[in-house]
Amino acid sequence: MRTVELAAKWDPVKTFKLGAKDIEGELTYLGAQVWRNPEVRVLEKEKPKIKPNEVLIKVKRCGICGSDVHMAQTNADGYILYPGLTAFPVTLGHEFAGEVVEVGVDAFNKRTNKKFEINEPVTVEEMVWCGKCRPCCDGYPNHCERLQEIGFSIDGAFAEFIAVPAKLCWSLKKLEDKVDDLYKLGSLVEPTSVAYNAVIERGGGIRPGQNVVILGAGPIGIAATKILKSAGAAICIVSEPSPARAKLAKLMGADYVVNPQKENFVERVKEITDGEGAKLYLEATGLPMMVIDDIQNAIWECRGVNSIVVIVARAEERMPVCGEYFQVKRSNIVGAQGHSGHGTFPNVINLMAAGLCDVSPMVTKEILLDDVPQHLKILQMDKENCKISVKIS
Amino acid sequence: MRTVELAAKWDPVKTFKLGAKDIEGELTYLGAQVWRNPEVRVLEKEKPKIKPNEVLIKVKRCGICGSDVHMAQTNADGYILYPGLTAFPVTLGHEFAGEVVEVGVDAFNKRTNKKFEINEPVTVEEMVWCGKCRPCCDGYPNHCERLQEIGFSIDGAFAEFIAVPAKLCWSLKKLEDKVDDLYKLGSLVEPTSVAYNAVIERGGGIRPGQNVVILGAGPIGIAATKILKSAGAAICIVSEPSPARAKLAKLMGADYVVNPQKENFVERVKEITDGEGAKLYLEATGLPMMVIDDIQNAIWECRGVNSIVVIVARAEERMPVCGEYFQVKRSNIVGAQGHSGHGTFPNVINLMAAGLCDVSPMVTKEILLDDVPQHLKILQMDKENCKISVKIS
Amino acid sequence: MRTVELAAKWDPVKTFKLGAKDIEGELTYLGAQVWRNPEVRVLEKEKPKIKPNEVLIKVKRCGICGSDVHMAQTNADGYILYPGLTAFPVTLGHEFAGEVVEVGVDAFNKRTNKKFEINEPVTVEEMVWCGKCRPCCDGYPNHCERLQEIGFSIDGAFAEFIAVPAKLCWSLKKLEDKVDDLYKLGSLVEPTSVAYNAVIERGGGIRPGQNVVILGAGPIGIAATKILKSAGAAICIVSEPSPARAKLAKLMGADYVVNPQKENFVERVKEITDGEGAKLYLEATGLPMMVIDDIQNAIWECRGVNSIVVIVARAEERMPVCGEYFQVKRSNIVGAQGHSGHGTFPNVINLMAAGLCDVSPMVTKEILLDDVPQHLKILQMDKENCKISVKIS
Amino acid sequence: MRTVELAAKWDPVKTFKLGAKDIEGELTYLGAQVWRNPEVRVLEKEKPKIKPNEVLIKVKRCGICGSDVHMAQTNADGYILYPGLTAFPVTLGHEFAGEVVEVGVDAFNKRTNKKFEINEPVTVEEMVWCGKCRPCCDGYPNHCERLQEIGFSIDGAFAEFIAVPAKLCWSLKKLEDKVDDLYKLGSLVEPTSVAYNAVIERGGGIRPGQNVVILGAGPIGIAATKILKSAGAAICIVSEPSPARAKLAKLMGADYVVNPQKENFVERVKEITDGEGAKLYLEATGLPMMVIDDIQNAIWECRGVNSIVVIVARAEERMPVCGEYFQVKRSNIVGAQGHSGHGTFPNVINLMAAGLCDVSPMVTKEILLDDVPQHLKILQMDKENCKISVKIS
Repeated sequence: MRTVELAAKWDPVKTFKLGAKDIEGELTYLGAQVWRNPEVRVLEKEKPKIKPNEVLIKVKRCGICGSDVHMAQTNADGYILYPGLTAFPVTLGHEFAGEVVEVGVDAFNKRTNKKFEINEPVTVEEMVWCGKCRPCCDGYPNHCERLQEIGFSIDGAFAEFIAVPAKLCWSLKKLEDKVDDLYKLGSLVEPTSVAYNAVIERGGGIRPGQNVVILGAGPIGIAATKILKSAGAAICIVSEPSPARAKLAKLMGADYVVNPQKENFVERVKEITDGEGAKLYLEATGLPMMVIDDIQNAIWECRGVNSIVVIVARAEERMPVCGEYFQVKRSNIVGAQGHSGHGTFPNVINLMAAGLCDVSPMVTKEILLDDVPQHLKILQMDKENCKISVKIS
Repeated sequence: MRTVELAAKWDPVKTFKLGAKDIEGELTYLGAQVWRNPEVRVLEKEKPKIKPNEVLIKVKRCGICGSDVHMAQTNADGYILYPGLTAFPVTLGHEFAGEVVEVGVDAFNKRTNKKFEINEPVTVEEMVWCGKCRPCCDGYPNHCERLQEIGFSIDGAFAEFIAVPAKLCWSLKKLEDKVDDLYKLGSLVEPTSVAYNAVIERGGGIRPGQNVVILGAGPIGIAATKILKSAGAAICIVSEPSPARAKLAKLMGADYVVNPQKENFVERVKEITDGEGAKLYLEATGLPMMVIDDIQNAIWECRGVNSIVVIVARAEERMPVCGEYFQVKRSNIVGAQGHSGHGTFPNVINLMAAGLCDVSPMVTKEILLDDVPQHLKILQMDKENCKISVKIS
Repeated sequence: MRTVELAAKWDPVKTFKLGAKDIEGELTYLGAQVWRNPEVRVLEKEKPKIKPNEVLIKVKRCGICGSDVHMAQTNADGYILYPGLTAFPVTLGHEFAGEVVEVGVDAFNKRTNKKFEINEPVTVEEMVWCGKCRPCCDGYPNHCERLQEIGFSIDGAFAEFIAVPAKLCWSLKKLEDKVDDLYKLGSLVEPTSVAYNAVIERGGGIRPGQNVVILGAGPIGIAATKILKSAGAAICIVSEPSPARAKLAKLMGADYVVNPQKENFVERVKEITDGEGAKLYLEATGLPMMVIDDIQNAIWECRGVNSIVVIVARAEERMPVCGEYFQVKRSNIVGAQGHSGHGTFPNVINLMAAGLCDVSPMVTKEILLDDVPQHLKILQMDKENCKISVKIS
Repeated sequence: MRTVELAAKWDPVKTFKLGAKDIEGELTYLGAQVWRNPEVRVLEKEKPKIKPNEVLIKVKRCGICGSDVHMAQTNADGYILYPGLTAFPVTLGHEFAGEVVEVGVDAFNKRTNKKFEINEPVTVEEMVWCGKCRPCCDGYPNHCERLQEIGFSIDGAFAEFIAVPAKLCWSLKKLEDKVDDLYKLGSLVEPTSVAYNAVIERGGGIRPGQNVVILGAGPIGIAATKILKSAGAAICIVSEPSPARAKLAKLMGADYVVNPQKENFVERVKEITDGEGAKLYLEATGLPMMVIDDIQNAIWECRGVNSIVVIVARAEERMPVCGEYFQVKRSNIVGAQGHSGHGTFPNVINLMAAGLCDVSPMVTKEILLDDVPQHLKILQMDKENCKISVKIS
């Protein structure tokens, strides 16, 4: 079968030390310090064989994620930009949907609590949580201590077929007859679930009638906009300089888009919300140094209390946080990671089935498997596209 | 000024004992055991004078509530049906909106944290919580130990003017230019807040994508339907036998209406939700004996866990609850009362201002002040009307 | 190795229908309708072999639970009293602690996130949750849809050795050098966790300084008393008629024990709490019809709001619940089941290691494996013993 | 009557602008920018007269708070160090307990819901929340928009008598016959409530068996230690360099005290908790720059997830927060302020009445009213004393 594979050379920087869970030459939790000269190519591989607890999925659609771009992109020394868990060579691709075509003897469908059905449309969590470590047993699979990641450390879905544990699969059957393009929307469940986990599970959601502010209108910010409007946000303000993304944010429900490069963000938030401010601020830019003061000052200057700041975008920079603002305004900061557990995938699918979360307009381009390597390069510069979706079968 | 007053005779039943907070001949917490031969009439009274912490409101609209009907309705012995806190004679009316026309020196507007503005449009909490007892100080004004109620124990808003403490007023300024009829919608904030307190504050709300079931499509059930759809309910099922109310429920967002007299409620819930059931069940019929088994069996037979049953309608009957169902399905029962505190009024107003909670279709008839006495009688039998709204000025 | 086995005849009552998950002649979810003429005997069996994800435990201690008694006890027609999931013949015993003596290649210790250590002292969850169904994936293993139960549907710990999945094991290493009898206390972690899940996870715990009422001083009520005092209950009232159990309750921290057969429960609660009542009421008697009015009336007559009633004891009877009491007093009813997930086992072990939860006085008798069959009979009548602990190796 | 008064000169720094709620020459929200050359003296004043909603309290005890010291202490330019709400001249003192000696006609006792009793022992909230602004009406009196503060902007309790609104008073009757020195302990309810609000209300408390870390063993850290041990903290680690305070922390329940100037804090936390870390970290040093990395690194390097960092000490400095740590470890930062609302005062009093919160050992010295001015100076340097308590009558 055809696949998109990324290979790179294990050539650690001098300061790198093999971690407790790293495997020499194979797997590391600190990709950017180890992998050099990545190459992406379309490759024929053998169709995978399933284990008893797995299903084989014929992949229909798989989106390109920023992480895919960063795995193929390098710094001046040739090291990949993606900092996290990686084991190369690997088939890329983790935002996908497809059809079940083979079922292991112990592969159960959570929709029915019976063996999986052939032809069941499904999407899949990217995080292969072990279900046996302390965080998994306590109910926090996003913080699994023995995590593997599909398309990062084990083979992904830029491929005609993929074998995955049934427990990671979520049926899309409810979307049949309800949406225009089942698999296109289905492949967006994963990124939408990252946003849902951030604003609903970690941010605690909102009460209908409260206001929200989203900083950054990339795929996560866009999905969060749609989710929070569906949750009854009275006013959703998106902060985003790119005109193309601003337009998309409006299309997805944003009531106002503020350009922080041209407008005074804090003043605009005060003005739009009649001085009340927002219950939830989502940092989805990845540039916390750039936006933390806007967030803190908006909290400080608006009259509302109990704001929650959710940090979902990854960044190594430190943010200068003023504790007093959070004391006086009874406010919190929360870190968000992952998409697994807490009913997130099925809630997102239910929301889509109800017609309340059609995030498909975030797909700004559709391509074929053979086009992936080239687009991973294009996307290094291109900020106009929001999500590129790959049609696979 | 013209008012609608209810008078009745203090003539306690033999078993009645004066309570600690009752006042002989004047006020009781057990109206149905004391007040006999109620009479409702249109009466001229003097315009009220305000205290320093009060505002004078020119009433524009006031809705008729089921409680108003029950205060004027009697049993075979001539005692009023309404069981609660009452002090007669009293001007009726507590679901109202109007314009501020006079402002006490200590009367502040929560919208601005400054003295109230003349002509500010406002609506008002019906519960006059003291702010000084243990529940009030702990943050639970709906459970005030020194409560008075507007239109029940102190003069209400079926009148051209009413004087109320500023702390009970909530500005409707945000609705200006946003809604067709500011005061018509504004007078619905109170009953909508009762529903909001029940499903959001007491029921804990839902996560977007979860399902809900509302039993009873009276004003509270109807408002709850609108609120929960605005909160992202994937599927909202309303159980209601009256065709007129069923139609209204659909208009307000119900995805399905089940007629429990003609259909098998439990089977329908299973079928509609693909066996998942609902996160929240709202008992809004006032007939718990009639519906508790439907609710318990739906919880038991559906596969979802963590259901919350919210009891909002008042009823003296006891419900036969099976603890094991609530154990096996990790479920809860919650009692809900009131509309004050917890940001409920302002959240409802924000939701209306955002166009997400137009409950005005529940107004099925509009009348004038002089028509109120006659309509209190008509409503004893009439089940076709949902909410009658009185135009006052 | 020596074991205590229960065998019985599959002889369903006429009205019994094989359920979806039942297996003819082998396993049922409705034990009391199927199994007849139970026989308990001490039997030699082969030492079990472990799978890759399992450890072999040399059992040191195992407590006798009421369920063990009910599996061996019959009604007039010879059917067992225990109503739930059962597959006979089975080795009984599920409240145990022991030492790891063999480790599968994939058997990890949550304490270290490494392979299990030989000689690690451990206790084990009784619920074999699948980790793959909807409730498990959402974080609710106590409500697993594919549950097996150790000592009920698969072989238990009245045996010299038992093989169990490593994910169910919790290290007792912290108790070493901290407690008198590591394995005696360790074998009480399971029943203590049932109480902890009821009052902390499902009941939401208390704030230090709040009051609690425990109805029934069996092992669960006793453990709940200890846990809630350790959580800062200002006043813990236990309602219990048996003098022996009352004495034990006091020993475990109860501030007051009320005998509901001789004293007016509601008046006593009012008097003791200065009219405030309790934040949490735990129904641990199994006789809800007998105690529900005491609970409801205490809630109604005391001045506190926000009470939570936790139903932990199993009972088929229905309770006549008055919704209005729960409305006026802002109160809730919650069903509680199980002990898995939510960090419960490790929190209980930490509490024991800190010397804050020594529940070992609830062990009123210690016996040997060969004595178990006889004591299962004695316990049908004996109400003086609280917990009998079996020394195995 | 004798009082301790602080006077100062209104002489704003050049950059100061009169705020919306400031009153020229009288009151400001930014004390340190306005008040110069403070003088503290013992002064005879007239016994205050009460309003209808007030009680007159004969003050028995009043503690000295760090804020009192900072109001009397100046920088090089003679401006006071205390940065907040102040109106001088004012009688100082806000941590007090006394006896009710006169009762206004509308002054109710929350303990009885009746008029206050003469001779009732009480303590009083320092925050005079208005009960009418948006935060107060929503249930957040600590964030009142029209706040006054006893002993800061209105006359305090370094005086023989004080008149206060009854709604701020909490009965100490439960402590009678239960504690050695009713008023000494009663005067500590206020600072203990600040700690309780921080760790229980804002920090969300802990589950029994979880670990906590307290940074700084001043009065708030000490009280938090006692509260969290009473809430079932398995291990409570206090970080504190002063030997005197370390000793006190141990006395109040700390399981370990770490000296961060001599020991590696992160390593010690790992070692003591067997690598688990803490559920709650309380920043009570006022030196966030000094401790934030210790906290973040402990969270990062320990294996536990879901840590909450509560910032209770005031500081203007910004903390360099690494969002990624809070993402990977599912952690939160929370700001805490105040002591009012949420049942905090009565819970603290209940806890003291139960013998579970005897914080009186934090009183390291007892003095008389006339000694206050001198001790306000001594305390500028003295770090040995924890709390000085003033015996007034």
